[in-house]
Amino acid sequence: MAFSAHSQTVSTDVVLFTIRDDRLMVLLVRRPREPFGGYWALPGGLVHEQEDLDDCAARVLQAKAAVSGIYLEQLYSFGRPGRDPRGRVITVTYYALAPTNRLGETVMKDSDDRCWAPVDQLPALAFDHNEIVPLAHQRLAAKLEYSTIALQFMGERFTLSELQTVYEVILGESLDKRNFRRRLQGLRCIEETGEWFRGGSHRPARLYRVRQPGRVDIIK
Amino acid sequence: MAFSAHSQTVSTDVVLFTIRDDRLMVLLVRRPREPFGGYWALPGGLVHEQEDLDDCAARVLQAKAAVSGIYLEQLYSFGRPGRDPRGRVITVTYYALAPTNRLGETVMKDSDDRCWAPVDQLPALAFDHNEIVPLAHQRLAAKLEYSTIALQFMGERFTLSELQTVYEVILGESLDKRNFRRRLQGLRCIEETGEWFRGGSHRPARLYRVRQPGRVDIIK
Repeated sequence: MAFSAHSQTVSTDVVLFTIRDDRLMVLLVRRPREPFGGYWALPGGLVHEQEDLDDCAARVLQAKAAVSGIYLEQLYSFGRPGRDPRGRVITVTYYALAPTNRLGETVMKDSDDRCWAPVDQLPALAFDHNEIVPLAHQRLAAKLEYSTIALQFMGERFTLSELQTVYEVILGESLDKRNFRRRLQGLRCIEETGEWFRGGSHRPARLYRVRQPGRVDIIK
Repeated sequence: MAFSAHSQTVSTDVVLFTIRDDRLMVLLVRRPREPFGGYWALPGGLVHEQEDLDDCAARVLQAKAAVSGIYLEQLYSFGRPGRDPRGRVITVTYYALAPTNRLGETVMKDSDDRCWAPVDQLPALAFDHNEIVPLAHQRLAAKLEYSTIALQFMGERFTLSELQTVYEVILGESLDKRNFRRRLQGLRCIEETGEWFRGGSHRPARLYRVRQPGRVDIIK
């Protein structure tokens, strides 16, 4: 290296969101050793010598959540000196989104070394990870306004009520049904399947899907 | 260092925007040596051992543009292996905004080792810097929609026509005067000074200023 006087350590940490029981949750993993041994933390890892940052984040998701091919976007880089007691570590953070059915039963099940925490009830996390989750939540909420990012949480077919619930869970507030539907039409991102959902005592509801060609036309 | 097997080099590069002659310009500096010797590049520098990322970007601005205290925000981190032929360098990029009168005559004057280039007419830049400027421009344009960021380009007092020109220069398109003024009122970020600008053959125009307490209440 030509810059040995300036070498740093770089990691990525990933905020993986899902929605379970109408709550926005993030994946946490238990740190097996010091520093912050026994604390919950965001899944993360050191960037390898010949690895792109995005690839590192994808590798972390694969290793810690056994998932790939989901929405993944760089969030922000944190580099306060002293954030890691072992030495200078700069972390490039990402956030990722997936519906629970993409994550698999094993990953969704809480255990001693992996759990899902509601964004508004986080435990004390390792390092500066308690600063990272709110920033990711804020970015996600802001994107609802002008993008189709919420569709990342939907299954293949869904009702407009289900989609509205996703918005409400992320924003933490109730939305007016008529305004919500008008806004969705403006985004032109979903289409009717021609099928109906009939369940319980409610009136049948139209089923929608992401407009062709599917997830590719997500507006970032 | 506990992580010597994973050490990287981290830099910051700053896209400093100003508006000159109704064009959105970025500051470029000439690289004095290899790699990319003689090429134009964004001002940048290596992050010091005990330096926060924001502080490094501020130091770069002070060193290369003799300016401090202006709007400065982290943009994105670039870390493709091979982006620097000397070895692995991850750069945390920032963008900054200032009106020309904050920058001083010396800095505004083009020379052999420093120049201002219009964002839509960039020369071939060193490293991956040609990817960074459009991303910064895109972020800035997106922020016009929901923030008061454009006020960073204004002097102490300005007319609504001058402010509209700033929007048009950044967006690269003409705006409807009435819609523009309605949108501004929604942001509630400026107020009348009670003074008028009288110049040329135009009708006198009201002068505005940023609403109290000034630049502090900028919506990021």
